Amino acid sequence: MADRRILILAEGRFGVLDAKTATCVIRYAPDEVVGVLDSVTAGATTDEVLGFGPPLPIVARLEAGLALGPDTFLIGVAPRGGRLPEAWRAMVKGALEAGLEVVSGLHTFLGDDPELAAIAARSGASIRDLRRVPSDLPVASRKAASVDALVVLTVGTDCNVGKMTASVELAAAARRMGFAAAFAPTGQTGLFLGGRGLVVDRVIADFVAGAAETIVLDNAPGQDFVFVEGQGSLLHPGYSGVTLGLIHGSQPDAMVLVHQPTRLRTLNDEIEIMPLPDWIELHERMAGYLKPAPVVGVAINGYDLDDSAARAWAERITADTGLPAVDPVKFGAEPLIEAILARGLDKPRPSAVARGAGR
Amino acid sequence: MADRRILILAEGRFGVLDAKTATCVIRYAPDEVVGVLDSVTAGATTDEVLGFGPPLPIVARLEAGLALGPDTFLIGVAPRGGRLPEAWRAMVKGALEAGLEVVSGLHTFLGDDPELAAIAARSGASIRDLRRVPSDLPVASRKAASVDALVVLTVGTDCNVGKMTASVELAAAARRMGFAAAFAPTGQTGLFLGGRGLVVDRVIADFVAGAAETIVLDNAPGQDFVFVEGQGSLLHPGYSGVTLGLIHGSQPDAMVLVHQPTRLRTLNDEIEIMPLPDWIELHERMAGYLKPAPVVGVAINGYDLDDSAARAWAERITADTGLPAVDPVKFGAEPLIEAILARGLDKPRPSAVARGAGR
Repeated sequence: MADRRILILAEGRFGVLDAKTATCVIRYAPDEVVGVLDSVTAGATTDEVLGFGPPLPIVARLEAGLALGPDTFLIGVAPRGGRLPEAWRAMVKGALEAGLEVVSGLHTFLGDDPELAAIAARSGASIRDLRRVPSDLPVASRKAASVDALVVLTVGTDCNVGKMTASVELAAAARRMGFAAAFAPTGQTGLFLGGRGLVVDRVIADFVAGAAETIVLDNAPGQDFVFVEGQGSLLHPGYSGVTLGLIHGSQPDAMVLVHQPTRLRTLNDEIEIMPLPDWIELHERMAGYLKPAPVVGVAINGYDLDDSAARAWAERITADTGLPAVDPVKFGAEPLIEAILARGLDKPRPSAVARGAGR
Repeated sequence: MADRRILILAEGRFGVLDAKTATCVIRYAPDEVVGVLDSVTAGATTDEVLGFGPPLPIVARLEAGLALGPDTFLIGVAPRGGRLPEAWRAMVKGALEAGLEVVSGLHTFLGDDPELAAIAARSGASIRDLRRVPSDLPVASRKAASVDALVVLTVGTDCNVGKMTASVELAAAARRMGFAAAFAPTGQTGLFLGGRGLVVDRVIADFVAGAAETIVLDNAPGQDFVFVEGQGSLLHPGYSGVTLGLIHGSQPDAMVLVHQPTRLRTLNDEIEIMPLPDWIELHERMAGYLKPAPVVGVAINGYDLDDSAARAWAERITADTGLPAVDPVKFGAEPLIEAILARGLDKPRPSAVARGAGR
């Protein structure tokens, strides 16, 4: 992966919350990004907008972006509903004409668009639709419960709250502690970053849980931990079904709750976010009908907090819930790995503990 | 619809529980069915196998079925996973060669099969895939809560427990009581019987709740009641996500819980079915996070009970839950309609009450 040169399209939406894919790729693969296309923030550098990462150029026009020498054109914004806005179409065409690989996480497959496909065929460019999923997924039947690896699912108090980031950080922390750990992506951004997975919200509804089951079974061999990226929220009016399907399909041994302390209402629907103990109880209950799975800790999304505020929130959340809480981006997810190990879950102990590498 | 002449394929599976589509079509459109194809029960008549309905012939071979003069060939069995077993393929080909309209609720679209499509093109036959769904469904956003009609969703203690049947019976009872009532199908059988709907479990997962929302908005105008057919169960390892999506997408004013008293474990996964008060609380809780919706009564699936046993179960369920319970197929769903009206739900009173027709 390290030899990609990525130009990220984030037109009109570049920022931490609106351009989730763009932000995550800049966070976890900064060496691969050559610049960002966004006419609103153009002229600034990415670190000025995001508050982290290297100072990558933001440009307003495709020509300026192509001048940065990209080989990959990533659509780094996921509009609600997932379809390609007409305004972006001209830029996609330009990127294809320039021979770049266009990578898209949109629901509408660019590869199925006759005009775009024709341009790609002419220029030798390729189109990768991240949401393409296999057509032979099973109906889930609790098979994921049988793997030896500890399966940890991230769940959240809203959508777009940091479940993918928390999962990546959990896997990184586990590896730093000497464990074999897989990040199992279930969304387009995680899949673009790498890992064995598929975009579960693209799957036909009957097979969502089966997709989660498949992802766990694919990732588990040889691992101590599989960190499954969660999706949506159990109380999101549009996406709750995907969330429950992931819980029942992946059959987690433990869950980590992801929460942004300063978010009081949900982003899309402005529903008041209920207290964390209620969220914890709800998730443990819905998972527990089929298999017990504690929420072992809270991953704080502190993108808008400084270090001391994030620490203060962690203390407050621990007081409210009795669980460890940490902003894994700022401080690492090690306390959450410790929390999983401390539970004495009903699985073989991770190998690294036996090797003396853990704790 | 009343001029269809339907031959139903239920090969190897004809019976009340295994051949759900076949059974429901014989129950609700008996005048349209000319016979059933099933080599196991061939020689008997359908009433002998099902215990209800007219004595329709069951034949072993396609040729004998074609001799009954059908114009429609319905695949009346939905295999787990929804795909066409190879053994049925020859019969589908024969039906197409004979010029029949082949109607399928399978996940694999027969119309996309080059061999079958070629036969249809040659013979003039048509193929109707009930699971084809629109590609422009929205992400749900609680819009279904805004309709004037009372929205009633059936939910169940398992899949294949009678939610469609209960919904059809509820609509019929409401009409008998003088109300304007729509049956809103969400599965292939209901859609085949008629009504405005779509097969929600075929929808891409992000849009399941949006599909339910769309169905409610389409059906509500001019109706006092919309009875939305539920799917799956909140605790089914494979389908729970679809169930929750329907609950949050359709924004019901009330729910009716469907239960088969003699079923102690779930059909596919053999999970013990928990007590009804727990089911009621679970559904009211999961719906209620977004909008309060009481479970107003229990619809008993008494396919394996005689009238007096069904009445005894109804009394016992009422004692356990404090709610009215009735086998709507045997006795009509009127008590459940009364129960909805008695709740004084926060909607305009149904027009028929104002007209003096109700209660």
